[in-house]
Amino acid sequence: MTTATPTHFTAVPLDKAYRLLNHGPTVLVSSAHMGVSNVMAAAWSMPLDFDPPKLTVVIDKSTLTRELVEGSGQFALNIPSRALAAQTLAVGTDSARVVPDKLKKHGITTFAARQIVAPLVLGCVGWLECRVVPEPHNQQTYDLFIGEVAAAWADARVFHEGRWQFDQAPDDLRTLHYVAGGQFYVIGESLLVG
Amino acid sequence: MTTATPTHFTAVPLDKAYRLLNHGPTVLVSSAHMGVSNVMAAAWSMPLDFDPPKLTVVIDKSTLTRELVEGSGQFALNIPSRALAAQTLAVGTDSARVVPDKLKKHGITTFAARQIVAPLVLGCVGWLECRVVPEPHNQQTYDLFIGEVAAAWADARVFHEGRWQFDQAPDDLRTLHYVAGGQFYVIGESLLVG
Repeated sequence: MTTATPTHFTAVPLDKAYRLLNHGPTVLVSSAHMGVSNVMAAAWSMPLDFDPPKLTVVIDKSTLTRELVEGSGQFALNIPSRALAAQTLAVGTDSARVVPDKLKKHGITTFAARQIVAPLVLGCVGWLECRVVPEPHNQQTYDLFIGEVAAAWADARVFHEGRWQFDQAPDDLRTLHYVAGGQFYVIGESLLVG
Repeated sequence: MTTATPTHFTAVPLDKAYRLLNHGPTVLVSSAHMGVSNVMAAAWSMPLDFDPPKLTVVIDKSTLTRELVEGSGQFALNIPSRALAAQTLAVGTDSARVVPDKLKKHGITTFAARQIVAPLVLGCVGWLECRVVPEPHNQQTYDLFIGEVAAAWADARVFHEGRWQFDQAPDDLRTLHYVAGGQFYVIGESLLVG
């Protein structure tokens, strides 16, 4: 973990935090507990409430991330862009249980969050620092976690005035939307209706 | 409701149904109960399990859809494409409580589902027929519904061999990803990693 923060790192007002996830990007879940940290990919997350902002994410029982999230009661959702596609696939494929140095192996660099112990992933374009809203039945039965957003951040080149602005930024900053088998779609053009 | 089914209407194997939602499209929630049916837009949905496939969707207490879903125990998620952007915004803006003929007003045509009473929306590119997995605490506290997928369908021009194939189809068939204020992003290019 570096103490640096990324360039263009800008606070997102909490009442606009849901917009980071509203268009359905694939995310990286970062977590830390008792000196151990990890990052995994997740395609299954969504906003759950506006203000205070809440979100959901599915975290399988087999993962180290699950243990760290349940231990610490915290996690972050990091929104990777096209430039991080290979690393997103890699940390979604390798398990830290099998490849303990997977972050180093795949060149994932992290930096300190402000409200939680879980680190944030450098090179992403959005970040949501979350505290778990304990729902043991959902967690046990569905692997479903609810987080309340304590802080939200974005890369100001691509998210400003409370919304994504992909069309005015380099294509490498567009979000990733996973399908299967190593295939992503990159988010495309803006369409204003009405 | 017409008895016709759309052209290119093809069954999606249940173990591939999650892939219809995996890349985070905005959906239309259709429902019916006691002779009343409705369609509303929802940006907050995600896959929850592979097989049997389950998914989640947020349905606000103020909506007619909420009453129909709780009454019938069923709903469908319909995945609109770019060609339906104006209608998607319209049925997400107008409430059937205020505009009782909103489907007719906005030119929404439906056809019969196979496993549930809720109709399906013509012009969409994917359809997930769902039965509610009752979770009263989630429904009451978070407006969060869990559905088990009973049948899944897609437009074969754009979803075949178990995955989306947007790059070989007309751009009007690409999925919509809502931001806010009438702004969508259309899903973009495919990126194969590894």
